[in-house]
Amino acid sequence: MAKELLGEVIGTALLILLGNGVVAGVVLDKSKSKDAGWIVITIGWGLAVAMAAFVSGVLGPAHLNPAVSIAMAYAGNLPWSSVLPYIGAQFIGAFIGSILVYLMYKDHYDATEDTGAVLATFSTGPAIRNTVTNTISEAIGTFVLVLGLLAFGNYDMPAGLGTLTVGALIVSLGVSLGGPTGYALNPARDLGPRIMHAILPLKHKGDSDWGYALVPVIGPIIGGLLAAIFYGLAF
Amino acid sequence: MAKELLGEVIGTALLILLGNGVVAGVVLDKSKSKDAGWIVITIGWGLAVAMAAFVSGVLGPAHLNPAVSIAMAYAGNLPWSSVLPYIGAQFIGAFIGSILVYLMYKDHYDATEDTGAVLATFSTGPAIRNTVTNTISEAIGTFVLVLGLLAFGNYDMPAGLGTLTVGALIVSLGVSLGGPTGYALNPARDLGPRIMHAILPLKHKGDSDWGYALVPVIGPIIGGLLAAIFYGLAF
Amino acid sequence: MAKELLGEVIGTALLILLGNGVVAGVVLDKSKSKDAGWIVITIGWGLAVAMAAFVSGVLGPAHLNPAVSIAMAYAGNLPWSSVLPYIGAQFIGAFIGSILVYLMYKDHYDATEDTGAVLATFSTGPAIRNTVTNTISEAIGTFVLVLGLLAFGNYDMPAGLGTLTVGALIVSLGVSLGGPTGYALNPARDLGPRIMHAILPLKHKGDSDWGYALVPVIGPIIGGLLAAIFYGLAF
Amino acid sequence: MAKELLGEVIGTALLILLGNGVVAGVVLDKSKSKDAGWIVITIGWGLAVAMAAFVSGVLGPAHLNPAVSIAMAYAGNLPWSSVLPYIGAQFIGAFIGSILVYLMYKDHYDATEDTGAVLATFSTGPAIRNTVTNTISEAIGTFVLVLGLLAFGNYDMPAGLGTLTVGALIVSLGVSLGGPTGYALNPARDLGPRIMHAILPLKHKGDSDWGYALVPVIGPIIGGLLAAIFYGLAF
Repeated sequence: MAKELLGEVIGTALLILLGNGVVAGVVLDKSKSKDAGWIVITIGWGLAVAMAAFVSGVLGPAHLNPAVSIAMAYAGNLPWSSVLPYIGAQFIGAFIGSILVYLMYKDHYDATEDTGAVLATFSTGPAIRNTVTNTISEAIGTFVLVLGLLAFGNYDMPAGLGTLTVGALIVSLGVSLGGPTGYALNPARDLGPRIMHAILPLKHKGDSDWGYALVPVIGPIIGGLLAAIFYGLAF
Repeated sequence: MAKELLGEVIGTALLILLGNGVVAGVVLDKSKSKDAGWIVITIGWGLAVAMAAFVSGVLGPAHLNPAVSIAMAYAGNLPWSSVLPYIGAQFIGAFIGSILVYLMYKDHYDATEDTGAVLATFSTGPAIRNTVTNTISEAIGTFVLVLGLLAFGNYDMPAGLGTLTVGALIVSLGVSLGGPTGYALNPARDLGPRIMHAILPLKHKGDSDWGYALVPVIGPIIGGLLAAIFYGLAF
Repeated sequence: MAKELLGEVIGTALLILLGNGVVAGVVLDKSKSKDAGWIVITIGWGLAVAMAAFVSGVLGPAHLNPAVSIAMAYAGNLPWSSVLPYIGAQFIGAFIGSILVYLMYKDHYDATEDTGAVLATFSTGPAIRNTVTNTISEAIGTFVLVLGLLAFGNYDMPAGLGTLTVGALIVSLGVSLGGPTGYALNPARDLGPRIMHAILPLKHKGDSDWGYALVPVIGPIIGGLLAAIFYGLAF
Repeated sequence: MAKELLGEVIGTALLILLGNGVVAGVVLDKSKSKDAGWIVITIGWGLAVAMAAFVSGVLGPAHLNPAVSIAMAYAGNLPWSSVLPYIGAQFIGAFIGSILVYLMYKDHYDATEDTGAVLATFSTGPAIRNTVTNTISEAIGTFVLVLGLLAFGNYDMPAGLGTLTVGALIVSLGVSLGGPTGYALNPARDLGPRIMHAILPLKHKGDSDWGYALVPVIGPIIGGLLAAIFYGLAF
């Protein structure tokens, strides 16, 4: 299992580097991709997941997401005993990825005084703050994510095509369901960088918005589990 | 046939959730994807169809569109006796999808006072109102849709690639032929959500524009049938 | 050969409908995709070629372009005796496609008083008028087009993937080499619609810019031939 | 080896024509794609790499990048004795490509008085000038590039799909990691055109920014080598 866990660490680090990297490029001051728009953000995250899955997939199943690991355990695709180690590896990867984004965009972090923009390069936040509806939004998004992943398994796609299709699914979720919460859909992707936001010596650091921190953890876990249950019943 | 019908219900629900979801994200107030532009709308709808077809395709042929089911029946790919049940399942899916979009974007529906924008997250409307030309536009668009679907069947594409190619066709139709009417191309996609617009307890509800309701039903059925006839003659 | 010629007619009609359709959507007044930008134009043309090639490819080789047919004849992939019939079929297709764009966007043509915008939905025009450099630009673009098409033939791509790759090549040419002339790269795509611009009863019709008409005919033929010669020498 | 070297020359020429071509289209005055945005730049570069790799791949391994050739030599995929000839071929290709961009956009070069914009169509420059952090940014980007390329080698992708996936990786790197330095990631891509900028008879020629010239040479070589070392240890 060591190899698989290494795959989760490397893959999640790459996911956060490329995923939060595109946000950093779009929101931090003086970046060449400043204000490049939602199409760049959503394609960036879709490709981040695909590329991280290609690299991680050499070593293991490339879940890169605790909500996916839990749902896959429920669906019988992962031993329950592996879930906690996987989640631990995913968080370690998320920490590393956040540090890499910081190294990559160091001068731009120093140049950006808007602490909300800085936090956005680590974690998501709601467009309209409402614990109940925000949790529902994250749950619906992750429901579709996990339903899609389970459905893809029914197709004998050629090597590589399935991974690219997962990236297309992430773009779809971003453009269609990202509006209310910025689509975390992944507890490690959101909580891991939020912890690093609190730790890293950022020049313009504001609040880490801990009041919202549980929403992108609980919502995705509920949505992913419901998808696995629904898939078991209907398919 | 129960499994296929379930596939039509689930697939059309997903189609509407992701397809009308991208419209909701772009037009409703305070959404993070507000005003993200036509490229986001068209890629969103293309991926919505592809992802819905992947999930629905596990259970059945994934028509997700009465105009497609009627054309496929004419082309001999679906028993005529299945057409009405398929259409019924597609409408049920469209109802469910509309409810999911409402749940997903609840706070943004409440925040949006422009009732035209709210209606746009359910059904299409013409850029320039003209029953004859709008019907012709919808018919031409659906003609190309069905002609493409029938043509794709001649290629022995690897699993998954055909589904992604259908998504690419939808993006093509959106960018090239979406300008006049917003490209419904699908009676269930348009009339189903319009009915839900009339039913749902929306805070800012205007007219459901019933005067236009038949255009995106009649136009697509005519266009799809003409494509099946043309394909039978020329190919 | 009748089947192949029918394929050229249908394919080129579809090419012009979808290709000039995206231009019409972006430049004609009151269209929902008005001012949607260069990314929409270039993706629209790339998908137009791919979708036209899928449909046309059921019946024949889907050249859809006199410069390609001439280059393929030089490269030994098409009998020279077929070149003129192919070109004739491509022009007939281009005429039909232009009529379909007109039907599709009828109300928007009537609403658009800018005769330059109207002409742009038929034919290309230079950003900076200069017969020599414009011809060179069209030649370089078509050189890369034909070189790419000949190179793709060396790969045993699965069914459908090669067609999508051709679409990706067209997007590449559009974004990278489309700036100076609007990338006709195809005599039938440019001259065919220009003839229809002169014929159709457009409400706001200006000059058909016949002074430029030869550039997107001569440039592409030269560029395509040079690519076939270069490919024969270097590969 | 002559065939492989010819492949590097042709491929790198095409890479620079299409890659710097998209920059020329977006930044030079009066171009039809003027100000088309970051999404056009990044998709343009991704497709440039994919199309150049398709053409070059007919003749050889299509590295098109000294940092890749050095990393591949370290990884045992290229004899060390081939590295210098490959690099020489890549620079010759970059010179040719720069001349082609100049021919393609000649009138627009003459029309553009902003010498910074002119230089940007040849070589990259930093958003915030800082030799250390700029070098780190280029190294991280190239690390991910080479790690991705080595990872892709583990998948038995169908012909063509791997090449398209490399293009997707380049889009990912552009949107996510391009903000600080404009992502050269390739010494030949940056230094080759910079030399041509100094040589070509440009009407509005400013400084070639030689003070920055080593950063996109050293950073990519370090990053690529570190990726090959890391890959050898972890995979």
